[in-house]
Parts: sequence; C-alpha cells; structure tokens
Amino acid sequence: MRVAFIGLGVMGFPMAGYLAKAGHDVTVYNRTAAKAKSWCEKFGGQSAATPAEAAADAQIVFSCVGNDDDVRDVLLGSDGVMSSITSGSIIVDHTTASAKIAREIASVAKGSSVGFLDAPVSGGQAGAENGQLTVMVGGSRDDFERAAPVIDSYAKAITHIGPAGAGQLAKMVNQICIAGVVQGLAEGLHFAQKAGLDPALVIESISKGAAQSWQMENRWKTMVKGEYEFGFAVDWMRKDLAMALAEAAENGAQLELTQLVDQFYAEVQALGGSRWDTSSLLARLK
Amino acid sequence: MRVAFIGLGVMGFPMAGYLAKAGHDVTVYNRTAAKAKSWCEKFGGQSAATPAEAAADAQIVFSCVGNDDDVRDVLLGSDGVMSSITSGSIIVDHTTASAKIAREIASVAKGSSVGFLDAPVSGGQAGAENGQLTVMVGGSRDDFERAAPVIDSYAKAITHIGPAGAGQLAKMVNQICIAGVVQGLAEGLHFAQKAGLDPALVIESISKGAAQSWQMENRWKTMVKGEYEFGFAVDWMRKDLAMALAEAAENGAQLELTQLVDQFYAEVQALGGSRWDTSSLLARLK
Repeated sequence: MRVAFIGLGVMGFPMAGYLAKAGHDVTVYNRTAAKAKSWCEKFGGQSAATPAEAAADAQIVFSCVGNDDDVRDVLLGSDGVMSSITSGSIIVDHTTASAKIAREIASVAKGSSVGFLDAPVSGGQAGAENGQLTVMVGGSRDDFERAAPVIDSYAKAITHIGPAGAGQLAKMVNQICIAGVVQGLAEGLHFAQKAGLDPALVIESISKGAAQSWQMENRWKTMVKGEYEFGFAVDWMRKDLAMALAEAAENGAQLELTQLVDQFYAEVQALGGSRWDTSSLLARLK
Repeated sequence: MRVAFIGLGVMGFPMAGYLAKAGHDVTVYNRTAAKAKSWCEKFGGQSAATPAEAAADAQIVFSCVGNDDDVRDVLLGSDGVMSSITSGSIIVDHTTASAKIAREIASVAKGSSVGFLDAPVSGGQAGAENGQLTVMVGGSRDDFERAAPVIDSYAKAITHIGPAGAGQLAKMVNQICIAGVVQGLAEGLHFAQKAGLDPALVIESISKGAAQSWQMENRWKTMVKGEYEFGFAVDWMRKDLAMALAEAAENGAQLELTQLVDQFYAEVQALGGSRWDTSSLLARLK
C-alpha cells in the first residue's frame, strides 16, 4: 500500500520503519529534513518536502507529532495533509492529543470524504522500537477495519474504542491510572525507606498480591536507585494530564488525585526532572 | 507440633484449619466460644477457655485478632498468652497491627525467653480459605526459621522482612500502594464513564501496559457495576491507613496521597460503605 508518515521522532521513526519492513511504499515527512534523509537511508522509501507532498499519493497518511498545535499544522495547515489528500484515503493520527482536535479534524476530513482515526499509542519508545505498541483508536468502524491491518505492522494490540476522540479519551484513562499507581508506589517506597526496610524484601513480598502493578514490577528498582534518565518524560506526562484535566472540566469528572499528582510532577520539573521518567515522583519525597 | 490459635475470625478460622490439616495438634481460643466449638467439630483439636489455657502447652502460639487493643488483650492481658506460655516457645501474631505494639510485645516476650514474630498477611479471606496467604514477617531470623515451616500450612509466600515491627511496616507499604492504585483506577473508570466510553474496551486496551495492576484486572468489572459487597472492608482499610499515617508522623514520611485517599474512604463510609470492598472509592465519584 502507498502510505505517508509525518513525524519521525523517537516514536515515529521506528513506526514508519515497520511500515517499510512490512512491504508498504512509504513516503516520509519530518520538520527536520536530515532525520527524513537518514530514515530513507535506513529503510528505503522517499521523503517529501511538505506534509502535503507526502500525502498526495497516499492511501493512508500517518502522523505522530508533538501536540494539538503540531497536529493542526501538519494536517490542516497550508502545506498540510488535507490540502492534497485524495478522497477515500484515511488519516491515522498517532499523536497523543486532545479529543477536541480529534473531533475537529474528523469533521474536516469527513467533508472531503477522507477518513480520520485518532490513534494514540502506549508502550513508549521501547514499544515503538520493538513494534509492540498498544493502539487506542477512535473513529468509524469502517475506517478502523481498513487501517488496522496496516497499523498492525508495529502494534501488539489495536482496539477500536468508539467514535472520533475516543482513542484520545482512552489514552487519558491510561495516564490517570498511571498517575495513581506511580504516586502510591512512590509513597510506599518512600515510607519503606523512612522505616528502614529493605525495599527488595518488601517488594518481593507484596508484588504478587493486591498491591501489584506493572509500575511496581518494572520501576521499583530504578526508583530506589534514583535512576530516572529514561522512559516517558515528566513533561510529556504533564501535557497528557493537562488534557485529561481540561476534558474533565468539560465532562464533569472529579479527578482529585490526578490534579494532585500533576502538581507533584510540577515539583519534579522544578527539581530539574522535566526529562525524567514518570516514575520520578519518588524524587520529591525527602 | 503442639500449637495454639487465638482468634477464629474470617481469617483465623480457615488458617487454624490448615494447621490441623497439616497434622499439628491445635488448641483454639475464640472470644465467642460457639465459633471455637464449631471449629473443633470441623477440624478436630480442642478449644480452651482463655488464651492462657490455649497457650500453656503450645510450642507456637498464633494470634489473629482485630487491632492493637485486641493483641494487647490476648497476649499481655491477665488471661493472656504471656501468662502461661513456656520459655522457648514462639508467638506469631497475624493481626495487622502497629509496628509499635509489635516491638512492645517482642520486648516483653524476650524477657521471658519467648520468641515473637509480627506476621501480618495479605490475600484476604479467599487467600485464607485457599491456604494461599502472603506473610510479611518481622522478628529474629532464628524464630522466623523455626516458625516458617508451620506458617507454610496456609501460605504461598513467607518473607522475613527485618526485626520486630518490620512485618507490620511492610504491610503498611502494601496498603499505601493499594491506596494509590485504587484511587487512580477509580478516577480512570469515572473519567471513562463521564466521557461516554465503554469501560470494557478501554480496559481491554490499557490493561497489558504501564497502567496495569492487580486491582485493574480483578476489580474493574465490579467497580463499573457498583458491586462492593465483598472483599477487604473500607473500615479495615482505614484502620490500616491510620496506622501507616501514624507511623509516618514519627518516621517523617510524606504520605500526601495516602492521607487524601484515607479521607475519600471516610466519604465512602459516610455513604454507608463501611463494609464495602476497598475498590469502592469509585462510589463517591458522581
């Protein structure tokens, strides 16, 4: 299939690579052209000078950029995807963005008979590099079914959650759950340290029961060592939590813990932890 | 081995049963004598009129009662275990209690050359009934090694955490982690409901990744249905969190989330949820 991929960041670069490896004819666009060039050297395919040029021939256009503004820019801007994409094609946006912009773009796309799926991912950089991402999809069932076999090139699970925006909303649920898990784990480990316990023995004991979590299994060791120079950055987590809190302000959801943890992440930023992993909530507990 | 078991509640009743099934000679004591009688009818063994009488002949005395006051009563009271237990024996207290009382009793016991292990459990009623409890143990290594093979009758994992009180402190870490996980999950599901998402699809999508937890896997369905008439009661959770908060006030640990969630549990109690499962934090989100 002829596809385009817009945005070759830490996520997009390997994702686009999996599309090429799966045999698709991939045209890439990246703001910094050097990255697009190095992608082509590694995976073949061609690079385009603008999102519009990349999208002109494509049956599916993927985007994976930074935030709502970037999404609007590459999809709706003057050199954007919507200015060239042919009717009957589908845009799949892997950016973690607001549900609002997902609905807005879905509506614009529909006016040109173009499909749109909001499809944020989880699994992080490692998941992208291993082609094992989890993809939460909002949009029409029909578009989902056409795009899923292609998305499958870099996914371990693809779920159609609901209409436009539902993928983004599901990703927000994911981040809200993580906020609680990590803060609870951080306080638990902090308490263990203050109480003079060996955290390894405590975790060995409690990690098979009702306190168990992915974060406990995968993050307790680095947390105890104060190692945070990896993973999903606090800046990005705050961007996601801000979107969840904004959405909650509209739908009326009470997110007290989420709000509190967002402030704790602000404290981690103030400690210099903007690029630290989400598990760095322990760093502010002294 | 000759053992005594003090306290035949929902946990102690089956635990003492496993000791009998393992071939130990069990004498039981329970405040309500009828329960002790029905235990003897089911498992054999004998019942005693006081904790002292139960402990007189025992090489290991187990206790599993309600709180610090009960522990003090059955172990240090006038008819208590310490008034009759022979030197060289060991007391294993399975009550979830404070680290302070564990240290106090360990010290009294040591004066009479009696061993003491604080050994709170996790795994709940189901774990007790299936003989699959997780046991966190504080006390001397020597006492631990002598008692562990007997405790094994109803345990899937027994961990020696550290000196007297360390078992209780580890259990507090467990409850702190659970507080965070459950509140995060509650806010996540609440947000999903407010956003009009199908929680089944959201959980299907996010439950294999960084948001995963035992609570998510085992509690999301009942939470979404508002079913809370089972499991580990809010009253007990508040008792445990109060002990963790009191301990933190002494060791200087910052437990902001724990404190907040404790207040949320108070709101659940006000809704009539004193006996509801810990997962009922969702019930207060409207």
